[in-house]
Amino acid sequence: MKWCRFKTDDKISFGIIEGDTVVAVDGSPFGGDYKKTARTLPLSAVKLEIPVVPPTFYCVGINYADHVRRMAIKRNKEPEYPKKPDIGYRTNNALIAHGEAIVKPRDAGPKFQYEGELVAVFGKKARNVSKEEALDYVFGWTIGNDVSERDWQALDRTMWRSKNADTFKPMGPWIETEVDLDAMMTTIRVNGEVKDNFKTNNMIFDAATYISEVSKYCTIYPGDVMWMGTDGVPENIKPGDTVEIELTGIGTLSNPVVLEK
Amino acid sequence: MKWCRFKTDDKISFGIIEGDTVVAVDGSPFGGDYKKTARTLPLSAVKLEIPVVPPTFYCVGINYADHVRRMAIKRNKEPEYPKKPDIGYRTNNALIAHGEAIVKPRDAGPKFQYEGELVAVFGKKARNVSKEEALDYVFGWTIGNDVSERDWQALDRTMWRSKNADTFKPMGPWIETEVDLDAMMTTIRVNGEVKDNFKTNNMIFDAATYISEVSKYCTIYPGDVMWMGTDGVPENIKPGDTVEIELTGIGTLSNPVVLEK
Repeated sequence: MKWCRFKTDDKISFGIIEGDTVVAVDGSPFGGDYKKTARTLPLSAVKLEIPVVPPTFYCVGINYADHVRRMAIKRNKEPEYPKKPDIGYRTNNALIAHGEAIVKPRDAGPKFQYEGELVAVFGKKARNVSKEEALDYVFGWTIGNDVSERDWQALDRTMWRSKNADTFKPMGPWIETEVDLDAMMTTIRVNGEVKDNFKTNNMIFDAATYISEVSKYCTIYPGDVMWMGTDGVPENIKPGDTVEIELTGIGTLSNPVVLEK
Repeated sequence: MKWCRFKTDDKISFGIIEGDTVVAVDGSPFGGDYKKTARTLPLSAVKLEIPVVPPTFYCVGINYADHVRRMAIKRNKEPEYPKKPDIGYRTNNALIAHGEAIVKPRDAGPKFQYEGELVAVFGKKARNVSKEEALDYVFGWTIGNDVSERDWQALDRTMWRSKNADTFKPMGPWIETEVDLDAMMTTIRVNGEVKDNFKTNNMIFDAATYISEVSKYCTIYPGDVMWMGTDGVPENIKPGDTVEIELTGIGTLSNPVVLEK
């Protein structure tokens, strides 16, 4: 099932995508308290919004061995693989929907880069859940682009503006509830050209491991999201470019890049 | 004006505190679209909730010179003063209200500590605001206790469980809209004994500086909160203790500590 969130006449609703049609829904998919309405719209005619506004926005920092190894070579350092699943965070101010513009700040440098990521969207409250049952708490999956300014990431004490400036977190286009994680590939294209292509589930610590570990100390709530990190060595993007992150089985998240006015 | 959020019969409302009475309000104080109702309750009879559920939970990590100096001595390191206002974050799962229990996880070590903090609560959308106008975007002020597990803080790659485990972020008891920041003192008591007492506004970078800087890259939204850091050298707390953070002009945030069951 494909769930989206869309806006018509300034009203935001959840919807179920059936082929090229969106069926508007009353209520929210999280918790199951929703009803399909008689209202249907062509998918091409609706303005997609971010598929969920997360109460907590979890994000895994470093989660693919090849990414760690190749980023270390680039930075002329020894690769440091994470020894355990320590989760990080991003912020809601930075979220934008499929199709909306990534705004490059005027004072951002050339090392302004995409990161294509798998995103878990939670449907149930999870606390102290085992690795085996962890994925039962995931409502569905979407796509994230963890846009990063590398100079700020290196210079600042925290990742506040390098990762969390407005528009730096495209997420969408929708949530897919049925996926085969092991069959998924992540493909990143800039202006139609393939920049990276990797097995989505080839993670150092997989989603089930992260969810179980986080839930030992933190209650995960319906609507929370967990971004799972990226592989490869991201390249620079600049105003005028369009970045597409495709995850087989979910779809394609596409966003143009513009310069801050 | 004192604003609270309280629960009666499983319904959460905002309220205005007038002396010993809470006047229930329809709507939210953020944005100004609210109405006082005819319903009043004795303050002592209401269950106070956290005064706001923040869309983004900003938190300053290191913001008092004496804290930096004395923590460095304790850790046998050279003090490192922050050179610029780089904001950090905490998470909503960790928030608890005045009077609710801080639950010490079973596997947490003895270095389980309070941090008494001033908290700005935003009432208006802020983007690119000057230092001079920054405080106009603050709706009011409350109190936070940035409970921290120091071993995890040192060992983990991120501050996820050291600072963001469930119940580690007491906030309240209410929001005070009229304060004199320069006259404020922060007093921390454990079981009634004063552990620390410092000038609240004696910060390395004050609230106006942080708000202005954050707003250069990130839109601050109504209901967002910004915790401003702590001074002194926090001491250990343990199950059975009660921690009080008093900020003159606001009130006292009090929470017992219990051991995880």
